[in-house]
Amino acid sequence: MVNIDLTGCDPFVAKERYNGYLNKAITAQKVLEEETGAGNDFLGWQHLPSAIGKADTGALLDVVDRWAEREIDLVVVIGIGGSYLGAKAAIEALSHTFAAHIGGRGPKVVFAGENLSEDYTAELLDLVRMRNPACVVISKSGTTTEPAVAFRLVKAYLEQTYGKEEARHRIVAITDKARGALKSLSNQEGYSTFVIEDNIGGRFSVLTPVGLLPIALAGFDIEALVRGAQDAEKALAVRGTDNPALRYAAMRNLLYDQGKKIELFASFNPKLQYLGEWLKQLFGESEGKDGKGIFPASVIFTTDLHSMGQYIQEGERMLFETVITVEQAHREVTIPADPQDLDGLNYLAGKRVEHCNRMAQLGTKMAHIDGGVPNIDIRIGQLDEYNLGQLFYFFEKVCGISAYVLGVNPFNQPGVEAYKKNMFKLLEKPGY
Amino acid sequence: MVNIDLTGCDPFVAKERYNGYLNKAITAQKVLEEETGAGNDFLGWQHLPSAIGKADTGALLDVVDRWAEREIDLVVVIGIGGSYLGAKAAIEALSHTFAAHIGGRGPKVVFAGENLSEDYTAELLDLVRMRNPACVVISKSGTTTEPAVAFRLVKAYLEQTYGKEEARHRIVAITDKARGALKSLSNQEGYSTFVIEDNIGGRFSVLTPVGLLPIALAGFDIEALVRGAQDAEKALAVRGTDNPALRYAAMRNLLYDQGKKIELFASFNPKLQYLGEWLKQLFGESEGKDGKGIFPASVIFTTDLHSMGQYIQEGERMLFETVITVEQAHREVTIPADPQDLDGLNYLAGKRVEHCNRMAQLGTKMAHIDGGVPNIDIRIGQLDEYNLGQLFYFFEKVCGISAYVLGVNPFNQPGVEAYKKNMFKLLEKPGY
Repeated sequence: MVNIDLTGCDPFVAKERYNGYLNKAITAQKVLEEETGAGNDFLGWQHLPSAIGKADTGALLDVVDRWAEREIDLVVVIGIGGSYLGAKAAIEALSHTFAAHIGGRGPKVVFAGENLSEDYTAELLDLVRMRNPACVVISKSGTTTEPAVAFRLVKAYLEQTYGKEEARHRIVAITDKARGALKSLSNQEGYSTFVIEDNIGGRFSVLTPVGLLPIALAGFDIEALVRGAQDAEKALAVRGTDNPALRYAAMRNLLYDQGKKIELFASFNPKLQYLGEWLKQLFGESEGKDGKGIFPASVIFTTDLHSMGQYIQEGERMLFETVITVEQAHREVTIPADPQDLDGLNYLAGKRVEHCNRMAQLGTKMAHIDGGVPNIDIRIGQLDEYNLGQLFYFFEKVCGISAYVLGVNPFNQPGVEAYKKNMFKLLEKPGY
Repeated sequence: MVNIDLTGCDPFVAKERYNGYLNKAITAQKVLEEETGAGNDFLGWQHLPSAIGKADTGALLDVVDRWAEREIDLVVVIGIGGSYLGAKAAIEALSHTFAAHIGGRGPKVVFAGENLSEDYTAELLDLVRMRNPACVVISKSGTTTEPAVAFRLVKAYLEQTYGKEEARHRIVAITDKARGALKSLSNQEGYSTFVIEDNIGGRFSVLTPVGLLPIALAGFDIEALVRGAQDAEKALAVRGTDNPALRYAAMRNLLYDQGKKIELFASFNPKLQYLGEWLKQLFGESEGKDGKGIFPASVIFTTDLHSMGQYIQEGERMLFETVITVEQAHREVTIPADPQDLDGLNYLAGKRVEHCNRMAQLGTKMAHIDGGVPNIDIRIGQLDEYNLGQLFYFFEKVCGISAYVLGVNPFNQPGVEAYKKNMFKLLEKPGY
């Protein structure tokens, strides 16, 4: 199971205060699990993993097979926010770092409809024209501006290039089960569809087809991912102060109330850069309301020790750090000896690179604690589908508990509408 | 020239207070330009652009030509912090979004030595083995752990694969002019070298060979980049309150003193994601000391309006936003009409995607100001080498002035040593 080590907070918090927050978290857990809190019509994610069966993953894997038969080598996944970040985070975590350069088996997955940049759109279409493409379009309503614009363009290209009948086979829609523009279009055109349930919000959707289909198309084992989430669902439903989700939720709220306004999600594994982005949405959108909430930021170390490290060590003392540790590397590279040793590295000769990374992590933890930055360490064994499934569910659960401790509704996002209303007015959308 | 629009701060600041900060900024500018302030042995960047001549860029372009003759198709740039982020930011800003997928003319530039991940290192070597590679190694001392480890591995590969003589032609070092391990090795092996001047710190080095060589190797016009910086150097040396660097430095310090502790660098152009990272180092490392400094964060819109947007709109009111606007897109994509209009987008038919992006930006600005987030808008005409050169110099100048207004030495980074000391102890480095 995901492990948590809170000893890096010991110098900063009084035991009794922490126990008080633990009690708040226990209450919050009860509210969450008994579905009596604010936003309780959006709790579908809670028992989602255990509800996923072979038939569900099988239907997704059918798409993978069908597109493999068509020799699809590019899948354009169209979505924004929660319909983008989970899949992106998982695929980046599991892929070869240089996958885009290297090519290799299976289609490449790229994302669209997650911005309104004209250059991005044009360059996406450049790539689409060079490949044998298919498209997954993800939108509950089908009318969200960014994905709707991208889908109009990709759909038009597919229909013009392959004809309407073949295009139909190259489009899969993930959308509402009954209503909305994308559902209507899918019915009419005969697209394969998967359902976004009403009771699961975007940022909690990575374990639905929204996340699972793109991850499967990228060639990863979604059954292992689901198993990880199932094990986490079980383990984190336990009541009692050993529950790592409770402990983390308690600690981050206590630190926040002590003036640590920024949570810095950190990892020493560069493949977790987009997990950082997913975490920023999960926590930022769930907690950042009513004039409160921890501000989520993310860094990759040791890279960013040489950019943000100075601030973390000696800037305003309003940070705490949550490090996601991957205990084992997949590959093995040892540092070679050099007879001359001009660079003075021979003391590391024969040592694994990951050993240095580990010591850098330990050294950083000590340095940051000395500098006044509390440290929370969240550990998984290795970076694979199973552990990633655990992590996703773990953070979702922590987020639900944590936001209830903070006293906000974790499952709405009223502030996201503000820019849209203004934009529609400026674009002269009928009715605005 | 880079334009700045501060009207988005009007609702938040009193005119008289702002004028007071403008006076502080004028004083700081004088201290910076007369080189009488803290850290004044690191001001080489100030008159750097005007000192770059044809011979300097010519020597860099020679490397490009020599490696083109060798049909080099992969350049591994080894460096960390300031020896990484400037080139990375520029190359991402100027490249096709899907350059890694598409291939195309010129070598691909990838980065190494900016982390200690074993999987990253192994996968980098996978890519190196598949290509016809060369290497630029950037380190003042030659002993910084991350780049030294990566360089040992890449150098060993090149020598084993091509022999020592050929490897020598495939390695260029950017290092100290006289001292250090990398300089000694370069002399001994006969590598081509370029100099990192003593009076230019890492985060101010993008306009030295540290940034320019990788940017040139990636196929971009470094002479235009330098011209942009030269024009900025001239324009921003003007005394007087029209100087945009002064106005920006004054405003961000005022906002900070009014409790806006976080500066969110934002852009509606996804190619500026790594410019955001460069800015985080520039400002975070320059200002984050003595228990103070604005915390720098970055977002790409509209993407992150669907993740961080909720927090920005309604979370803790401790943010201000600095948006980098690119006024013109390079490409043109219009939104097609659809006879059925199920998605309700026909009101946009025939409109350019960038028009929607522009209206999203305006709508966001209004929404965020309404929500209590002051907005600073920094505008360039288009995203090209010339404008990027301006931007780099502009932000460097702002940073110097700004840190002096804050009352810290902009040019040191004492806190970066803390993790290293601990790491060396843990790695049992001799002498620690």
